[in-house]
Amino acid sequence: MKTQSTNSKKPVIGVFDSGVGGLTVVRELKRILPNIPLIYFGDTARTPYGTKAAQTIQQFAKEDTEFLLEAGANIIVIACHSAASTATGFLKETFDCPIFEVVTPSVKEAVRVTKNKRIGVIGTRATIESRIYEREIKKISEDYVIIAKPCPLIVPLVEEGWFDRRETKMIVKKYLHPLKLRCVDTLVLGCTHYPMLKDIIQEKIGKRTNIVDPSEEVARLVYNHVKANFDLKDTIPEKKDVFYFSDLGPVTQEVIKRFIKEPIEVKKA
Amino acid sequence: MKTQSTNSKKPVIGVFDSGVGGLTVVRELKRILPNIPLIYFGDTARTPYGTKAAQTIQQFAKEDTEFLLEAGANIIVIACHSAASTATGFLKETFDCPIFEVVTPSVKEAVRVTKNKRIGVIGTRATIESRIYEREIKKISEDYVIIAKPCPLIVPLVEEGWFDRRETKMIVKKYLHPLKLRCVDTLVLGCTHYPMLKDIIQEKIGKRTNIVDPSEEVARLVYNHVKANFDLKDTIPEKKDVFYFSDLGPVTQEVIKRFIKEPIEVKKA
Repeated sequence: MKTQSTNSKKPVIGVFDSGVGGLTVVRELKRILPNIPLIYFGDTARTPYGTKAAQTIQQFAKEDTEFLLEAGANIIVIACHSAASTATGFLKETFDCPIFEVVTPSVKEAVRVTKNKRIGVIGTRATIESRIYEREIKKISEDYVIIAKPCPLIVPLVEEGWFDRRETKMIVKKYLHPLKLRCVDTLVLGCTHYPMLKDIIQEKIGKRTNIVDPSEEVARLVYNHVKANFDLKDTIPEKKDVFYFSDLGPVTQEVIKRFIKEPIEVKKA
Repeated sequence: MKTQSTNSKKPVIGVFDSGVGGLTVVRELKRILPNIPLIYFGDTARTPYGTKAAQTIQQFAKEDTEFLLEAGANIIVIACHSAASTATGFLKETFDCPIFEVVTPSVKEAVRVTKNKRIGVIGTRATIESRIYEREIKKISEDYVIIAKPCPLIVPLVEEGWFDRRETKMIVKKYLHPLKLRCVDTLVLGCTHYPMLKDIIQEKIGKRTNIVDPSEEVARLVYNHVKANFDLKDTIPEKKDVFYFSDLGPVTQEVIKRFIKEPIEVKKA
């Protein structure tokens, strides 16, 4: 039996991630839906999800969703690639509310924009090993060539705040080199941390390569859903967004500031 | 009231860490105590501990110790710097068995070998921010100058297996540069992953700087304890070591292989 979400007529977006990376999705949502209240849950006590077994990720994703629904959300956004690729079906069976995630919208966009049908995908080792993008793109057509490359150092480089360092540029260049050699004309950022290095990634993969950013793609779908299903005059712009983290030490707080510049209400979950 | 450990007369060493880094401690223990059975617990489902709040780390360390005692260990080694600096006192109050940890032995060794009383410490951001080494060294004497430097990229570089790459050397050099400038003659590796890059660290800090390796220091103390308290003729050399991990996906299994080359018995906890 499905757990019912609250039947509020006002949209409240709940976003969860294994940690802080989902804040790039929040940034995009606030940019295009500034007046819709938002609740974020970052499971920093159990981050990262990507290296964990599928069953563990599903259980965590279920708990995260329950937390957001109880906190008042009625639209769920899975802003974690590991949870999106492992737990989306399970969550849709379990909960009776609209659930969006960061993988499928990027797949659709990549297929839409590629001209030579050669699509590059970068992500954490776990996301790449799951072959989720390959499977999803091949479902659309067997014609596409997917070149996937794990880039495990990008997350710690972003969390270190090394946005403009020589080492970061060298590492990004090294990671992207095999994709460039194989002539991808489209590159999917398969990790929510990666938009933080979008400029360097664009520079190293080349100006003519399309970059598909999961935070933009999922935010657009949520925008369409909200426009179609809610009377936006009903929204409460004054209601504050709240950011919950299952662990909130000084290190996490410092990393959060690298993602969201303006002051936000951060709480220990 | 203290939880009693099993009253076996044969030593069984239980080692826990938040993940795989503690395997460097296992390597040292097996080198000097090859016949003592060992149980390892890596809490990969909740790794890393370092970014989490003190109370969370204490609770996790308690659960890890309970797991090892129930599995038959009667000597506990905390092979995680975050747990060692945050939870050692708490564990010693809670459990009635010998408990060793990776911080204090390195402090003693650093103080023993330094000649100019200028000691460098490198570790994760959480370990450095905890100022545990500074406090422990200053307890011995206020004369010592401690230069501490967080190096958050070293753990992912090690887990990537980038042992011999140019980027690794550049990053290590960049991290160690301020310590070199300030003339430390002794460098404490304040993270159990770091011994995996000991050669590069030695090269970049300079040949004349003493490197204090926590895995060697704690293993020596455990050795002394075992020699003094057990009749080693009683040990069962044929008993296999067991390595438990709270999560054991393919990524974790790959990283384990970078730490321990020989085949080992690995189990999901």
